[in-house]
Order: sequence, then structure tokens, then C-alpha cells
Amino acid sequence: MKYKIAVLAGDGIGPEIVAQARKVTDAVVQKFGHEFEYTEALVGAVAIDEVGNPYPDETHELCMNSDAVLFGAIGHPRFDNDPSAKVRPEQGLLAMRKKLGLYANLRPVNTFKSLIHKSPLKTELVDGADFMCIRELTGGIYFGRPQGRTEDGQTAYDTCVYSADEIERIVRLGFEYAGKRRKKLTIVDKANVLATSRLWREVSQRIEPEFPEIEVEYMFVDNAAMQLITWPKRFDVMVTENMFGDILTDEASVISGSMGMLPSASIGVHTSVFEPIHGSYPQAAGKNIANPCATVLSAAMMFEYAFGLMKEGALIREAVDKALEAGIVTEDIADGKKAYSTSEVGDWLANYIQ
Amino acid sequence: MKYKIAVLAGDGIGPEIVAQARKVTDAVVQKFGHEFEYTEALVGAVAIDEVGNPYPDETHELCMNSDAVLFGAIGHPRFDNDPSAKVRPEQGLLAMRKKLGLYANLRPVNTFKSLIHKSPLKTELVDGADFMCIRELTGGIYFGRPQGRTEDGQTAYDTCVYSADEIERIVRLGFEYAGKRRKKLTIVDKANVLATSRLWREVSQRIEPEFPEIEVEYMFVDNAAMQLITWPKRFDVMVTENMFGDILTDEASVISGSMGMLPSASIGVHTSVFEPIHGSYPQAAGKNIANPCATVLSAAMMFEYAFGLMKEGALIREAVDKALEAGIVTEDIADGKKAYSTSEVGDWLANYIQ
Ligand SMILES: CC(C)[C@H](C(=O)O)[C@@H](O)C(=O)O
Ligand SMILES: CC(C)[C@H](C(=O)O)[C@@H](O)C(=O)O
Repeated sequence: MKYKIAVLAGDGIGPEIVAQARKVTDAVVQKFGHEFEYTEALVGAVAIDEVGNPYPDETHELCMNSDAVLFGAIGHPRFDNDPSAKVRPEQGLLAMRKKLGLYANLRPVNTFKSLIHKSPLKTELVDGADFMCIRELTGGIYFGRPQGRTEDGQTAYDTCVYSADEIERIVRLGFEYAGKRRKKLTIVDKANVLATSRLWREVSQRIEPEFPEIEVEYMFVDNAAMQLITWPKRFDVMVTENMFGDILTDEASVISGSMGMLPSASIGVHTSVFEPIHGSYPQAAGKNIANPCATVLSAAMMFEYAFGLMKEGALIREAVDKALEAGIVTEDIADGKKAYSTSEVGDWLANYIQ
Repeated sequence: MKYKIAVLAGDGIGPEIVAQARKVTDAVVQKFGHEFEYTEALVGAVAIDEVGNPYPDETHELCMNSDAVLFGAIGHPRFDNDPSAKVRPEQGLLAMRKKLGLYANLRPVNTFKSLIHKSPLKTELVDGADFMCIRELTGGIYFGRPQGRTEDGQTAYDTCVYSADEIERIVRLGFEYAGKRRKKLTIVDKANVLATSRLWREVSQRIEPEFPEIEVEYMFVDNAAMQLITWPKRFDVMVTENMFGDILTDEASVISGSMGMLPSASIGVHTSVFEPIHGSYPQAAGKNIANPCATVLSAAMMFEYAFGLMKEGALIREAVDKALEAGIVTEDIADGKKAYSTSEVGDWLANYIQ
């Protein structure tokens, strides 16, 4: 079968790491006899520079006509600490999420034996942690209107909105993933304060009986922020709204100690986007030192989640595991041992797969 | 001088721990020749049971006429996981915050040598961490209107609102506390997404020049959630809005490993409230085993923050430090050694002070 892949490398280290993911997918595609057609397009600060728009219409068109999007990273230091800049890379990200209907951001959090010592948490707490964060990505306070200022400019407001349908779609996904895993679902909200959270709970409780095999727990977001640190292994699948998800998924990502290794998938109505959770890391751009594994593992998620090609995904994971075992790693995780370059790691992985 | 103290013991272990704080304040008052007049009032689940209102009018009247409020804890398991219960203890808490104008919640986070091993973080990361979280407590999405449902009940909404005045008041407090500490202020927001956060940044940047000696940094909330874990020692004073503060202060409290030891102050327009950050711990209620130190240290904050009595506060802190050194501690931190009861610890502390 022929798959159309949009390649949005973006800013900073984006192009380098995406190049490695392509090497790896090429190797997989060859081995299993699939056909991939890649088309590149602009996104992020580089798109602002070239066409004045962080998510240009042509890029959107391409994504709409693609079976999946392989995404690098966006962001450039010149936009940092200037949230009032008229055109910002993040706007492109938010526009992409909304226009492609990327309603579910999936972030598996797991540990790697050889990296566990890098966790800020004590080893016994985090070793073996393995859970999936599902963040609602196109609703809530990120997109709710009205948003703005009163006429005198002295009062600002944002609106958090959720419809029962939006909630049902993502909570259902949570139940389904929990069913494929350890059958435990944690739904995180702030139902003791927010009307939207109370609707989340109402909808979730309505769906619950359809999944009798799933153990469901409801947890307040402040408690979840604590439990992620004190007892991460208690989680299997966690589902939550957009803003809480922004905070909790980032918190979750650092506890594993494997931040540079963590992939993500954003499941959409029109297509799905696969990208590493780390950023554009501008200091490393062009130096051929960035860790490509998170992007490579995002490609594994692409095979699994977008195309249902589980063996292909599993082989990529195996390759990454073997590379770690063999010490074929970039300097961020080399721990004083010999470090390989971004492209050397990519080559090794592609080679392993062939 | 004579100080009027409202005593709101609340639910669960509230009465036991507040009783110890009173012993300690009595000892301090005697030693330094102050006069305290305590008046007790109902709050929380017990107030719902007795008068059908978690924050009764008489309680409010009393607080309004008091120089400070010593608060225990509220919450009862029968309200858990039933966010739709008509009358809930939390409503009392929120009503109290709003009616007393408790705009600033201060939570010092620090470590105790003898408890540092209880932190989920690696010792070297957290040992010596010492910062102050300041959470805005009467604004934002907690109190913004409209809040509710559309007519068909299928869409829910909450509103986050901040005025420049509300922001200025709390950010100024942040600058002032930073000035008394290590002169570093971290202002946490989500200015790349929220209109309210952009106003926070605007107001903060306007105030900045008045405090040239303070180093200010602006940090997105998702990043703050990571930095709290990966590098807590980088923080001195952190100030943020209500909902972000709810999440981040709870996250911050567990990293220290001293959760049961952490006090808080809520500074208000009409009076101020001092309470431990831990909850009502219903499983331990009535057993004389709960750790009274967080409440005792909240009383220390009362002397310092409400009355400007720094020596008195310092003596209470000293007593707690000595109790830890001497192993006069409750079972939660006894680590298999002899555990003392709640009242024994209270007696020891009062005795030390005398
Ligand atoms: C850049 C920002 C708008 C974005 C978000 O808040 O969603 C980012 O933090 C993320 O999590 O992808
Ligand atoms: C009980 C709840 C309403 C409250 C809050 O969210 O403020 C609590 O979590 C807190 O932090 O004091």
C-alpha cells in the first residue's frame, strides 16, 4: 500500500532529527514492501521567515491530503519572552491542531533501563513506570471564546468550553486504550471547582458502564500533580482536558528521565501528527548532536496508530532498544562514554532494521 | 497587646492539630507577655452537619472581627467523588476566601534534614530547596463568571478573569517577598495562549522597574511543572494565578518530602488565615497520631505575617527543629523509631518554649 506522508521538519534541530526518522521509515518500508511518498512543507519560525505565517495554507493543504504528518519541532529563541509578538510559531501549532482536528494528544511515558538513573525521582519509584497520557487538544481554554480584554484594557478574560461530544470522543479513546493495556483509566479534572469538569465527569460516568472491564478513577488535577511524582507506577492510562494536560504531560515527561526519548501522536479528524515531545533545542541546531530517538519512536507510533502496522512499529522500537544496549547514542545520554552523532545513530537504526 | 484569634478547627484531624497549635501559641503568648483571645467557630463538613452551611454567617462574622484565623482542615470522605453534592465543604473554603478577600496564598517550601530521605526526588536535587510559592487565591477561573451550562445542558463553560489591579496586588507581594529573600522572582503564566496571562505579564513588566534589585523571570506553567522537579533549588519566590497555583503548589509540596510539615498563610483584605497544607486526613481522626507540626508552623507564620512578631515566630520554628532533632515526632515521620502522640508532640513544643 502507498502512504502519503507530510514532512514538517520545522525549526532548530527539527530537520536533523526528522531526517533520521525518514531513514528509519525508509528501511522499514523497504523491508515490509510498503510504499511511502514524502512531501516536505514549512512550519514554525522558518515558515514565518519565508512566508509570514507559521502554518501556511499550502502546508495545511498538504496535511489534509496526507495519511500522516511527521513533525520535527518548532520555536526560535527570538520569540521567547515576547508573548506579544504579532506572529509567533506557537500560533502555527495551535492553528494546525484546530484545522486538522487533532483532538487527542497521546504521550506514552516509559522508562529505559539504561537511562533510569537520569530521572530526578528515586529509581525505585520510577523504574517500570509505563503509562499513557491522553490530552484533549482542540478544546478548553486554549480555543474557547470570548477571549480578550475589556475596552479599557484593564481586565482580561479567557473562556474554557467543552461540549459533551468533545468530552465523549476523548474519554472513549481513554477507555479503549486502557482496554488494550492494564485496564485502568484515570480521569483527571477539577470537578470541585469547574463547570466544565463537572460535565467531564458526567459524560465519563455515562460511558463507564460500556466498559465494565476497565477500572476507572476520578482524580483532581492538584492530586494528579502529586501522584505523578510520588507514585507514577499507579497510572496506566490518564485522560484529561487541554490545559491540565499541558501541565501534567510535561511533568510526567521529566520524571522518566527519558525526556529526549519520548514520542507523541496527535490523533486527528483529518489526519494525525507524530512528533517528539522535546522542543526545537536551538543551541544544538546544525551540530549533528541531537538525539533522534524520540522522533524515530514517533515514526513507530505512526506505523502503529495511523496505519495499524504493528510489526513495523515493534521493529523500530526493537532497533532503538538495541541501539541503547549497544551504546550507539548521542551525547545527551552517552554518560561520558563515546557519543555518536545524530546521523550515525540514524544510520545504525536504519541498518539494524535492514 | 491583645490579639483576637478565630479558631476554625474543621474536620477530621483538624481539632487535634489545632489544639496543639493553641498550646504552642499559649506558651509563646505567656513568655512574651501578649494577650490572645481565642473564639471557636464551625467550618467544613461539621458545619454542614450542624447548620447546613460549610461557612456559616456567624463564622464569617467572627473572622471579620478577628486579627487572624487559625484553621485546621476541612473535608470528609462522604463528599469524595461526588462533585455534584449540593452542599460541599470546599464551597465553604471558597466562600471564606472570597468573603475575607484572601487574595494571596503563601506556601513556603523547605526541607528538613531529618526528612529529606522521604522526598521522592533524589536527595542532591532537593536538599536545601527553599522557596516561597505565592498563589493568587480570589480570582481567575475559580470565581470568574459566567460559569455553567448551555440550556440543553450539553456544553459547559468556565471563565477566567483577571483585572490589572488584582494582578498588581499579588505581583507586588511577590516582589516584596523576593526582596526579603534571595531576590529572585519567577512569574508563572501561559502568556503564549491566554489573554489573562498576557495581562499578567504586562502588569508585571510595568512593576518591574520599581524593583531593580530583583531578578525577574517569566516562565510558562508547563515548564514550571518540569523545573519544580528537575531543579527545585532554582526557585526563590514564585508567583502565579489561582488554578496554576493550585497545581504547582501541590506539586511543590510533595517534592520536599516534608508534606506533613508545611504551613501556609492566606493574606487577606479583612483578616488572614493560617493553616497546614495537608488535608483533614479522616483515617487518623480522633486517634491522636496526626502530625501537628504543619499547624504549629502555621501559627509561627501567624505571629510573623499577621502581627509582625518575628522573634515569636522564630522561637516556634526553633522548637519544631529541636523536636525533630530530639526525635519527638509522630509516627508519620518516626521512621520505625519510637513515635509520640499528637498531644505529646504539642506538649513537648509548648514546654520547650516555656
Ligand atoms: C507551545 C504551546 C502553545 C504548546 C501548548 O501549550 O499546547 C506546548 O506547550 C505543547 O504542549 O505542545
Ligand atoms: C478544595 C479545593 C477547592 C481547593 C482549591 O482548589 O483551591 C484545594 O485544592 C486547595 O488547594 O486549597
